[in-house]
Amino acid sequence: MNITMLTDFYELTMAQGYFKTGEGSKNAVFDLFYRNNPNNGGYSICAGLSQVIDYIQNICFTNEDIEYLRKFSIFDSDFLEYLKKFRFSGDIYAVPEGTVIFPEEPILRVQAPIIEAQFIETALLNIINHQSLIATKASRLVWAGRGDKILEFGLRRAQGTAAGLYGARAAVIGGCFATSNVLAGKMFDIPVRGTHAHSWVMSFEDELTAFRKYAEIFPDNCILLADTFDTLHSGVPNAIKVFSELREKGELSDGYGIRIDSGDFAYISEKARETLDNAGFNDAVICASSDLDEYIIASLKQQETKINVWGVGTNLITSKDCPAFGGVYKLSAKEKDGKLLPKIKISENPNKITNPGIKKVLRLYDKSTKKIKADLIALEHEMINEGKDLTIFSPLATWKTMTLKAGDFLVRELLTPVFIKGELVYRDIPVMEIRDYREGEMDSLWPEYKRLVNPHILPVDLSEELFRLKRNLINQTLHKF
Amino acid sequence: MNITMLTDFYELTMAQGYFKTGEGSKNAVFDLFYRNNPNNGGYSICAGLSQVIDYIQNICFTNEDIEYLRKFSIFDSDFLEYLKKFRFSGDIYAVPEGTVIFPEEPILRVQAPIIEAQFIETALLNIINHQSLIATKASRLVWAGRGDKILEFGLRRAQGTAAGLYGARAAVIGGCFATSNVLAGKMFDIPVRGTHAHSWVMSFEDELTAFRKYAEIFPDNCILLADTFDTLHSGVPNAIKVFSELREKGELSDGYGIRIDSGDFAYISEKARETLDNAGFNDAVICASSDLDEYIIASLKQQETKINVWGVGTNLITSKDCPAFGGVYKLSAKEKDGKLLPKIKISENPNKITNPGIKKVLRLYDKSTKKIKADLIALEHEMINEGKDLTIFSPLATWKTMTLKAGDFLVRELLTPVFIKGELVYRDIPVMEIRDYREGEMDSLWPEYKRLVNPHILPVDLSEELFRLKRNLINQTLHKF
Repeated sequence: MNITMLTDFYELTMAQGYFKTGEGSKNAVFDLFYRNNPNNGGYSICAGLSQVIDYIQNICFTNEDIEYLRKFSIFDSDFLEYLKKFRFSGDIYAVPEGTVIFPEEPILRVQAPIIEAQFIETALLNIINHQSLIATKASRLVWAGRGDKILEFGLRRAQGTAAGLYGARAAVIGGCFATSNVLAGKMFDIPVRGTHAHSWVMSFEDELTAFRKYAEIFPDNCILLADTFDTLHSGVPNAIKVFSELREKGELSDGYGIRIDSGDFAYISEKARETLDNAGFNDAVICASSDLDEYIIASLKQQETKINVWGVGTNLITSKDCPAFGGVYKLSAKEKDGKLLPKIKISENPNKITNPGIKKVLRLYDKSTKKIKADLIALEHEMINEGKDLTIFSPLATWKTMTLKAGDFLVRELLTPVFIKGELVYRDIPVMEIRDYREGEMDSLWPEYKRLVNPHILPVDLSEELFRLKRNLINQTLHKF
Repeated sequence: MNITMLTDFYELTMAQGYFKTGEGSKNAVFDLFYRNNPNNGGYSICAGLSQVIDYIQNICFTNEDIEYLRKFSIFDSDFLEYLKKFRFSGDIYAVPEGTVIFPEEPILRVQAPIIEAQFIETALLNIINHQSLIATKASRLVWAGRGDKILEFGLRRAQGTAAGLYGARAAVIGGCFATSNVLAGKMFDIPVRGTHAHSWVMSFEDELTAFRKYAEIFPDNCILLADTFDTLHSGVPNAIKVFSELREKGELSDGYGIRIDSGDFAYISEKARETLDNAGFNDAVICASSDLDEYIIASLKQQETKINVWGVGTNLITSKDCPAFGGVYKLSAKEKDGKLLPKIKISENPNKITNPGIKKVLRLYDKSTKKIKADLIALEHEMINEGKDLTIFSPLATWKTMTLKAGDFLVRELLTPVFIKGELVYRDIPVMEIRDYREGEMDSLWPEYKRLVNPHILPVDLSEELFRLKRNLINQTLHKF
């Protein structure tokens, strides 16, 4: 699907504006960043770059699009002619999908003629906001599950088709084991799971018949939904009958078990476990679903629940308690007389003042533990020498400093080239590889950054040079009023 | 885009199950309904039927899909051959888009061979849950705006591309005046709005130049964003200069004005209004955006704010404080020996016990005021005579009754035929017509059902016959344990 027209109207009015003023071909730099972690978490997981790449490669206005725009009677024909040949010809640097990210730091940076760099804003934000949100939520759920499998089951509650599809992908990036979403499985080569619904049970004469029929047809995919009538008095005993029959026929295979979708999970799962164990089905899986979130899972794990697979729907696929990521896209430099000059947006709210200039993000690791000490936003030309002491400071509370000793720290640059002069220079990474990469990323965080409530806040500092540039630009701007 | 594969995996395992047991060709009836209004509201607005029609008409497994499914090694080749020819051949009845709806009542009813009726569950829920959610949220915002224009500005925060696209459509159904989303404008023929961003202002030497350039190019679409540096000290005075220049040239046209995107809206808009009025720009629009929701708009309106156009982003497009609609799809009847027998799902939670049988939804209006008195869920064969007294009662509190006097009430059947034997029998209704229809629908509600907080709850009752059928089936089922 060509989503070139999936944009805010003002991107097009501004495009004509830049076209008409002759500014359009001047280079500009925009940063995509966000201001707060969802759910007041200690980190986020970035995702969406793969779809961004698709989008950028396929930008193209069709004749039909042009004729539609002509009807507004505010776009001139020379501009509409220009749009027919519109492509992205600039550079994009981005943080790889699955990377642990923090507020304020650019996770994507665009440098291109301003008419192009501005135009792609809406689609970039739409894609990255959505997928980073779901990857982050999934990561929280996986953390709460302490090694249990988390399954993404939310398609029916997703906000439309793309939210289901790319949400499933983001959930797997965030650490989910599998999804129920068949198209996501096919498109992204990720594991797919599912067995049957209540309606299957209701459509037969009785529950035992329904279970038996299911097990006959799917002996290798036998998770029986046990709560259609009464989990402990009907569902579990009937499931045990069917498992016994499968065992007698030698057809009981790994991963069989029950799913419960209602009731008091702690109590029911404990009783179900006992009954299953007493019948010799100690390896039967107990899967739970129904309005689960990371807090409920964490609470049940704390209660030493016997549930060991978790199907999460609405709360994951919509990130229900925080359904927007809040990424923004801000101009940070603009060409004048052949040079890129830093730009700043002032706001009464100090947190909303942007960081000017062409920037990079440096991640500082402790050399021995490989844990992240801090992130540092610096200007692109700045070099950090791992062989020298480095003192960094908080940009909002400048008296808070941290000194990293020469030789004790490692520096990693997060922004990676994706497009250079409009050409893709980035390798497409399989989702399951990104999933593994995220696991490694999580290892670079101390536990206190990962907890669900009141996590540590990682320092994201500005280099001395960037800090001064920002202060000077603020002073210059405010001076005018 | 073919979204046939955008389904939960269990729809496919159940499909093979029904295929293999020979049950697949037996007819079944499913109801799509929801249990609670978003945000504890007094009503919802249904939407999504148009995309459901697209989906149903285009169901088709490609060879590529079949080969993908084959790799799971649990689907038999006769079933996969069957899937190649899979189409929907049944009946669908639905409530028209834009209709006011209430919990528990079927808003869509499917009657088809169970293998088909079951399979379409996931896509139907995905589509209707999402679009009804956003239409309902929009309707709340429009109510709060008391006649002011509400613009949908959320694409960048939407949960993926389809959420932006169909969310914009649903927002207009819910009463929004326009969207910023260009593709939505093109696809659904709805009004599109937008002018420029902060980056436009930042990319010029100064704000006045930026405004002037914009106004030169778009004299007919001149809403100037006034808060890049300082709304009252810079943005508004500069805007006034530019409006004066336009007026001198005779180019000032309807709908010009300013947009403010930060700060204390009540204070800033009042001061901005004064300044604009003093300069003779009494008809300049003041548009606000930035994290607005229905409560903030209602509060500002109560403060007699001068803002008269509202751009709403995140809170609308994600329905942020309630981002899932919660529609479900439940089996209500299944063929046996050539007859459709009612089916019920029992739950420990009384609210989760389903209503059995083939049902219709009757809306009862007061004849003189044309306001809704109650909705009545009845069995399909039941007839209500407007010429006879009708006493209805609450299914959960049966002592609560209401008697509608003969001749004083009108009955309307809500479920309308959409597909009959797989053939579309429903006219595609333009979105702007649905928008007008919703306005009429809102007039059928007394104000107390529309308020944002603690609204009246409309009675949704069961007919005597349906109530008895339900009770009998519950007793029969529970008797087994």
